[in-house]
Amino acid sequence: MAEISIHVIDVTRGIPAAGMHVAVFARPDEERRQVREGRVGPDGVVERSPGSSTDIVPGQYEIELHAGAYYRAEGIVSDQPAFQEIVVFRLTVLAESEHIHIPIKLSPWGLSIWRGR
Amino acid sequence: MAEISIHVIDVTRGIPAAGMHVAVFARPDEERRQVREGRVGPDGVVERSPGSSTDIVPGQYEIELHAGAYYRAEGIVSDQPAFQEIVVFRLTVLAESEHIHIPIKLSPWGLSIWRGR
Amino acid sequence: MAEISIHVIDVTRGIPAAGMHVAVFARPDEERRQVREGRVGPDGVVERSPGSSTDIVPGQYEIELHAGAYYRAEGIVSDQPAFQEIVVFRLTVLAESEHIHIPIKLSPWGLSIWRGR
Amino acid sequence: MAEISIHVIDVTRGIPAAGMHVAVFARPDEERRQVREGRVGPDGVVERSPGSSTDIVPGQYEIELHAGAYYRAEGIVSDQPAFQEIVVFRLTVLAESEHIHIPIKLSPWGLSIWRGR
Repeated sequence: MAEISIHVIDVTRGIPAAGMHVAVFARPDEERRQVREGRVGPDGVVERSPGSSTDIVPGQYEIELHAGAYYRAEGIVSDQPAFQEIVVFRLTVLAESEHIHIPIKLSPWGLSIWRGR
Repeated sequence: MAEISIHVIDVTRGIPAAGMHVAVFARPDEERRQVREGRVGPDGVVERSPGSSTDIVPGQYEIELHAGAYYRAEGIVSDQPAFQEIVVFRLTVLAESEHIHIPIKLSPWGLSIWRGR
Repeated sequence: MAEISIHVIDVTRGIPAAGMHVAVFARPDEERRQVREGRVGPDGVVERSPGSSTDIVPGQYEIELHAGAYYRAEGIVSDQPAFQEIVVFRLTVLAESEHIHIPIKLSPWGLSIWRGR
Repeated sequence: MAEISIHVIDVTRGIPAAGMHVAVFARPDEERRQVREGRVGPDGVVERSPGSSTDIVPGQYEIELHAGAYYRAEGIVSDQPAFQEIVVFRLTVLAESEHIHIPIKLSPWGLSIWRGR
């Protein structure tokens, strides 16, 4: 079985984006369904909510980060929607047993995502 | 009137991602419609196709980059869909007269996008 | 003759890092001498001080950004030296007529630099 | 005691930059001395050579990555020196017990470094 792990750093302050809401969706063609959901923990790793546990299989996925709500709650931006309200990262799980680690560096004005291994 | 300009560099070789197909969509709530469409030119700037010319007004937009097709055509990846098949960047145009420049640095394995000014 | 242009964005706020001091040094082997010096202007471009005008020729160069002083003056960090006090980017000018554009995205906690063309 | 860990990904192929030579220097004022030395391992983490083991204490450090030699050995660039021959990242260890993790995403044409936690 494959897995996707996500790590989110707020580069405006060099700290984990603790509390940011994150969801992962499977996208088999048009239908889209949530397979993971949780919040960024104090170490930057997205903690999975109980019950959000559909298996990850090869195919296309979409990660959504609720960046606007996070940066407003932290008092860093006030616009609603913010410049980056919901950040989307689409990826393909290519193989059955792949563990994909997605480290995300984020500010209200941009992002850097490069797959680690 | 606002404007969005896009510049795409292929960091696997340090060159403009010339020929990559790019589209911009407006996203007023659920309905999504294309407002710009074109290809990356030899200088890295997305050249607008004739006829793709709806006005840009404050609101939410989505940029789509056809990265998978580009990297397969260049012989750099073979997977279909690729790890990053279609890259999505969502942004909000906040003000009426804003010119938003989006420089994008891309490889098949990640991306870096930070709003310039 | 070659040229190096530099553009610096402060990603903590999505604005040009206006006022940041920047210098460029030539590094023929061990000896190092300054060939450019100036501050980031209101548009993010490093403006050259009068008199800082040695020709750029093929060879190795080093860009120094006084990031710590800038972020302390802006009230964003207080450490002295800061985590990134002076940022260094080393590059080689490969050809006689090359114009190298170096866009830099910076926070007190990291940076993203990808050569444009 | 503080520690610095380094992780290097080659974003031209989305793989660890295995075999790249990396050194860390302490920089108390003008004098510079090597405190760590090793190569990137198969998991992307810099493995410390036996004997390279001076303690890390608060102060300024400099990481050097031998990127040019790596990309020439991999057949990705041929220039010598390469555009990025030796990559330098300077940082300050601020506190006695700090563990600083430095994930580095690299191509021959640029880099992205954002401190994790």
